[in-house]
Amino acid sequence: MATRLPDAEFETRLTLVRGRLADADADAAVWFDATSIEYLTGFHHVQTERPVVLAVTQDRVKITVPRLEVERVSETPTIDAVHRYFDYPGGDPTETAVEMLRGLGAERVAADADGAPGVMGFRGPSLSDVLDVETQNWVGRMRWEKSDAEIDCIRESAKWANLGHRHLADYTEVGAHPATVSQRASMEASRTMLDTLGDRYAVRVRGDGPVTAGYVSGRETTLPHGHTPNERLSEGDAIITGATANVDGYYSELERTMFVGDPSPEDAHYFEVMLEAQTIAIDSLGPGVEIAYVDDAVTEYFEEQGVADLAQHHVGHNIGLDGHEPPYIDGGWTDHVAADYADASEGDERMAPGHVYTAEPGIYTEEAGYRHSDTVAVTENGTETLTYYPRDLESNVIR
Amino acid sequence: MATRLPDAEFETRLTLVRGRLADADADAAVWFDATSIEYLTGFHHVQTERPVVLAVTQDRVKITVPRLEVERVSETPTIDAVHRYFDYPGGDPTETAVEMLRGLGAERVAADADGAPGVMGFRGPSLSDVLDVETQNWVGRMRWEKSDAEIDCIRESAKWANLGHRHLADYTEVGAHPATVSQRASMEASRTMLDTLGDRYAVRVRGDGPVTAGYVSGRETTLPHGHTPNERLSEGDAIITGATANVDGYYSELERTMFVGDPSPEDAHYFEVMLEAQTIAIDSLGPGVEIAYVDDAVTEYFEEQGVADLAQHHVGHNIGLDGHEPPYIDGGWTDHVAADYADASEGDERMAPGHVYTAEPGIYTEEAGYRHSDTVAVTENGTETLTYYPRDLESNVIR
Repeated sequence: MATRLPDAEFETRLTLVRGRLADADADAAVWFDATSIEYLTGFHHVQTERPVVLAVTQDRVKITVPRLEVERVSETPTIDAVHRYFDYPGGDPTETAVEMLRGLGAERVAADADGAPGVMGFRGPSLSDVLDVETQNWVGRMRWEKSDAEIDCIRESAKWANLGHRHLADYTEVGAHPATVSQRASMEASRTMLDTLGDRYAVRVRGDGPVTAGYVSGRETTLPHGHTPNERLSEGDAIITGATANVDGYYSELERTMFVGDPSPEDAHYFEVMLEAQTIAIDSLGPGVEIAYVDDAVTEYFEEQGVADLAQHHVGHNIGLDGHEPPYIDGGWTDHVAADYADASEGDERMAPGHVYTAEPGIYTEEAGYRHSDTVAVTENGTETLTYYPRDLESNVIR
Repeated sequence: MATRLPDAEFETRLTLVRGRLADADADAAVWFDATSIEYLTGFHHVQTERPVVLAVTQDRVKITVPRLEVERVSETPTIDAVHRYFDYPGGDPTETAVEMLRGLGAERVAADADGAPGVMGFRGPSLSDVLDVETQNWVGRMRWEKSDAEIDCIRESAKWANLGHRHLADYTEVGAHPATVSQRASMEASRTMLDTLGDRYAVRVRGDGPVTAGYVSGRETTLPHGHTPNERLSEGDAIITGATANVDGYYSELERTMFVGDPSPEDAHYFEVMLEAQTIAIDSLGPGVEIAYVDDAVTEYFEEQGVADLAQHHVGHNIGLDGHEPPYIDGGWTDHVAADYADASEGDERMAPGHVYTAEPGIYTEEAGYRHSDTVAVTENGTETLTYYPRDLESNVIR
């Protein structure tokens, strides 16, 4: 049971970025992105209008935070020194960060952006107004290959997602409200996860539980990003579910198409076409496989079946600290790497051990949508499918 | 009861930005930010790695979307034409958007950014690689003054937040799990809101309910952004709550400090100091008041009480479509406007009718935190406090 990243993980990551820094023409590496800062140090915070700025040199890790993050960041063993401003905009986050960087002797920096993101109304000067800045995407790229410890967290997430999903199926019946079924499944699965893991649970969510299980139903399933309608479930309704759990910041993705009562022949047909497409996708994954190929293989199958015009999106994406991460399983991936990754390396167009993909080809008619999603880790020799809720039609008909 | 913005609202907003466009040296106005696009058109989507690009000219509104948003955007009456790419990165969102803009005869554009935000791994060319781009923050600024219809939505949100909060208080007892209390309160209040509003409810959330009510407890209250611990409630625990509801995209903010059983004399003392500080803040709000003054008034009171070193943040922020919005109630606000708002207008340092503030001064010891938050609209003649859960100590002791 791995429910928390080991501290050694952060030391490994810091060593890796220091290797990149040694090759760069810069005195320090800088990050403004909350997820990147968490990835490197273990310090997590909600990205708001109050910037947080991380600086890494060959021998020091320093951070600039608003006053309200001081206590939590001070408990982070990877961080050597904390600089603070009181709040934004009364305090000056950029000035505080620049002082921090000058204290490190840094005039040339390699940063993930030229200033904090404009989240929730933040406005401030660019870092390049005062320092020499080149931009880098080192952490964005490092996150493609997950370590065994990261995959352990995603595997653990998939377990609790499965429980949440089982509750969704059990609570579903004609006349039930889809919002209430969703919230009850999340509540019960969260409570079981919390009571099972006890002090091994990494406390990460606020005013909520760690498991999120829910669904959209009826006509809303025709939209890949549909909403939960304010309509009770009816006989024959299609449902598209989603279940995940937060395990020390990491997520899995489990989605199923279900039916309330027996599906129509048309529903059953489209379900089986989707299921076969997903099987093709899952079976295509593996180390060294060209990522675009998997999307192309599904497209070819959809064309054979005469449903290519019912597809509305590519086959999948990576998942980890974010719900969607690159690489994406998209027919254009190879060209994208060539065009948009100035820092591309040999092989970036192919799957590699440690990548964690969702496989979720979908088709959408004017009546209903059909999509499963499973989370699949690429290993040295093949793949490991981390989610395991039954995929077949019979298991997903609620009677 | 106002549970949905009227369509006329979007026409008013579009007319306003067309006025700004007429004064600018540009052929079209462009937005990449999901909240801004929703604000202007009513079309809402989740911002992902798939960019959405809105273009507004004096007589046309066009949008570029990924395939999976086509059906929803096509139902939006404010939008005249939809351009699509299949997905990212196989489709080319920037190229599609540039073609859309050229079809509008736009070579010079006033955009909210020089390209889509780097969310979930998006990478693409800058708009200025192909067009003449100046940046503008028109919508960011327009959102400061809410219309009566917007305030109606926030007022409605405050009602359902109040119900969620009442459930939080009712379900709280020694031995209860704070996550389960939170999730149960959210579930029950959501269900009541859905059943009460029926088809007047604007469907906006996915796999969840519209009401979110929850809390952090015990030592986690010492952190302004604490988490819900995996520890059952004990006699004497402090609790800091948060409750809100989504009403057609708009939010209110209601937070209370509560105690499980009788508070210690120290808890009672700090609670009363916090309560008086919040009263000072609420009473200070009003049209024409310098925003920074409200923060300064609270700081002065905290200094008199000898607790200034226990404050960790400023007094509040605006709220609406985002949980935090400018203007912020911060002692540095006046200077910030002068330094960072190139587009500042006379009076931007003062409160005005339509601003909707949270008033939430807090103090934090090593044992517990003390913070209420209420949502207050500034009117022509004074203020209207939209949240109304009791603020006094006795009402917030759970026995």
